[in-house]
Amino acid sequence: MSASDNSNLPKQNFAPLKNDRLLRALRFETVDTTPVWMMRQAGRYLPEYKATRAEAGDFMSLCKDTARATEVTLQPLRRMDLDAAILFSDILTIPDAMGLGLYFETGEGPKFKYPIRTQADLDRLPTLDVNDSLDYVMRAVTSIRTALNGQVPLFGFSGSPWTLATYMIEGGSSKDYRYTKGFLYSNPEFLHQLLDKIAISVIDYLDAQVVAGAQILQIFDSWGGALGHRQFIEFSHAYNKRIVAELKVRHPDIPVVLFTKGGGLWLETQADSEADALGLDWTMPLDRARQVLTAQHKPLQRKKAVQGNLDPATLYGSPETIRSEVTLMLDRAYACGEKTGYVANLGHGITQWVNPDNAKVFIDAVHDYKL
Amino acid sequence: MSASDNSNLPKQNFAPLKNDRLLRALRFETVDTTPVWMMRQAGRYLPEYKATRAEAGDFMSLCKDTARATEVTLQPLRRMDLDAAILFSDILTIPDAMGLGLYFETGEGPKFKYPIRTQADLDRLPTLDVNDSLDYVMRAVTSIRTALNGQVPLFGFSGSPWTLATYMIEGGSSKDYRYTKGFLYSNPEFLHQLLDKIAISVIDYLDAQVVAGAQILQIFDSWGGALGHRQFIEFSHAYNKRIVAELKVRHPDIPVVLFTKGGGLWLETQADSEADALGLDWTMPLDRARQVLTAQHKPLQRKKAVQGNLDPATLYGSPETIRSEVTLMLDRAYACGEKTGYVANLGHGITQWVNPDNAKVFIDAVHDYKL
Repeated sequence: MSASDNSNLPKQNFAPLKNDRLLRALRFETVDTTPVWMMRQAGRYLPEYKATRAEAGDFMSLCKDTARATEVTLQPLRRMDLDAAILFSDILTIPDAMGLGLYFETGEGPKFKYPIRTQADLDRLPTLDVNDSLDYVMRAVTSIRTALNGQVPLFGFSGSPWTLATYMIEGGSSKDYRYTKGFLYSNPEFLHQLLDKIAISVIDYLDAQVVAGAQILQIFDSWGGALGHRQFIEFSHAYNKRIVAELKVRHPDIPVVLFTKGGGLWLETQADSEADALGLDWTMPLDRARQVLTAQHKPLQRKKAVQGNLDPATLYGSPETIRSEVTLMLDRAYACGEKTGYVANLGHGITQWVNPDNAKVFIDAVHDYKL
Repeated sequence: MSASDNSNLPKQNFAPLKNDRLLRALRFETVDTTPVWMMRQAGRYLPEYKATRAEAGDFMSLCKDTARATEVTLQPLRRMDLDAAILFSDILTIPDAMGLGLYFETGEGPKFKYPIRTQADLDRLPTLDVNDSLDYVMRAVTSIRTALNGQVPLFGFSGSPWTLATYMIEGGSSKDYRYTKGFLYSNPEFLHQLLDKIAISVIDYLDAQVVAGAQILQIFDSWGGALGHRQFIEFSHAYNKRIVAELKVRHPDIPVVLFTKGGGLWLETQADSEADALGLDWTMPLDRARQVLTAQHKPLQRKKAVQGNLDPATLYGSPETIRSEVTLMLDRAYACGEKTGYVANLGHGITQWVNPDNAKVFIDAVHDYKL
């Protein structure tokens, strides 16, 4: 059963969208100014986030608390003129729902009690009914979309199968992906079985987020860049491509952004998908990215917008530095002469040490840039 | 005083080199087969290394123990038909000699007791007399070169200024380079002062290694890939370029390999140096790398060989997998039709979990490949 015919979700009459700048840019339509948002914009750099999080308890409790997840999603929009909101959640919700026992150790990243290391582990993984085991995510999406009241579009998101598989196999984050790459090189069929299971859940998960109210989707392939060039195609991109293709069948009008951290070398590969935009970290000059994508573009294929790519550490700089870095970035983004097809963002999530005033300088600098 | 006129090093009459395959490949001369070595080839994947290390005590004691540092350098050459040896040492010897108090915590990476965070910290950094404070390194080089008896050429090496600066400022390894990038964006002059001091020591350090017996040099820019594209040029490459240029003045016949992990996107930038070869991690296809370098090549400029780039995790695979991955790699390395100018290697150091027999399969597969 596809999530889209699940009728236990209330049919909402959401308010009409007031700010469609970001959606227009992705469709290569004219925009009055450059749309901008920040990955992890609801986060620890905001004192009001820390206060709400403290009320909720641990991180996953905050994700599962509809009212507070809604509250933290909206917090950055009260401070800054952001052009999108993004569901407050975690990329590890799917493996958590699959029963891997997600927990967080203080000072360390996320961990899983039951990593996937054997065929028996793999066979035990359930096929998720996302509207059941991940109903808290869908409730948050609907609640946030309602609370936004049409102010800006709402991103839903998921981790990519490869990125989720690394966590599921390693049992947490990793420097060298010892076990995951061990399977890749010694038992690739095992890894493909796992990736296939995850991909099916990711499709249903993103589909359900759209039904619940998400207006745009992003796939985070946070660790795609750890793969070899051929292995990226086989073990990461192939699954992302399939997910995007299936989502385009179910929801042709919902744009999808594909973000592979460290994937700048492989833009040609990533262009081979129905994604509307590719996210870029700060290692890739935007003018070169747009050149590559233009050169790669084939008739009848969806034209690829780009999103990114300021180094989040830029926000440690002075307002003057932030403004000059933004100008240099936007000069490159529009060097091709096409004043659309671009969404400004950081090249990765904003860090907890950023002064929120500096984040606002970034957002305002993007909007102040004359197209 | 340059290290090269330091007369307290004994003038050695080293044995003539029997295997110059690697040096020939770097000069684009014909080779009988592809030269190959492995980064971190003297390491924890070898039981004999672990035994010698246990005798020496901690890691730095092993580096400072001339006989044992020589022993571990030679160990992998007894098992495998390697075409180069590399000095057994650490990239953090320079900051250690500068008084930062290097120590290793079990299960964690290297740490510094006294990180560089203020102008006073920076001003206190001594100008190193490398033959004094790093005399143990030079003794090891001479001892290893003597023990090699001309079997294969000996690599000396250093960390790049940027990579060393990240450790010196963060006080250890880092995920996001919070403090280093904080300086980069808020007080770049401070970072440049530090990089300048480090670069001066790196030049003297590599110079002294050549005088002591190193026949080829490698600069490890392990964290260069963390920088933005413009910042890589200003804060990493500019210093590497200067170091290589100065070494070429002092030792015109000593080849230099520049290895920036995650630097595949910036080969054009890296080509703008007098380095003889560029090292590549596994994200960059070798055929594309050689195409870029050929397109970039200017008359009178030193032609760039390439070194790399098998994913070290490949060695977790079966012998058949290793052999087929090696074949695919070498096919790409020589796709340009030029059967030289290439040194096979891993794209990063061999990991402690590799079966030494699999490392041997890799080395033999490279040599068995028909040019």
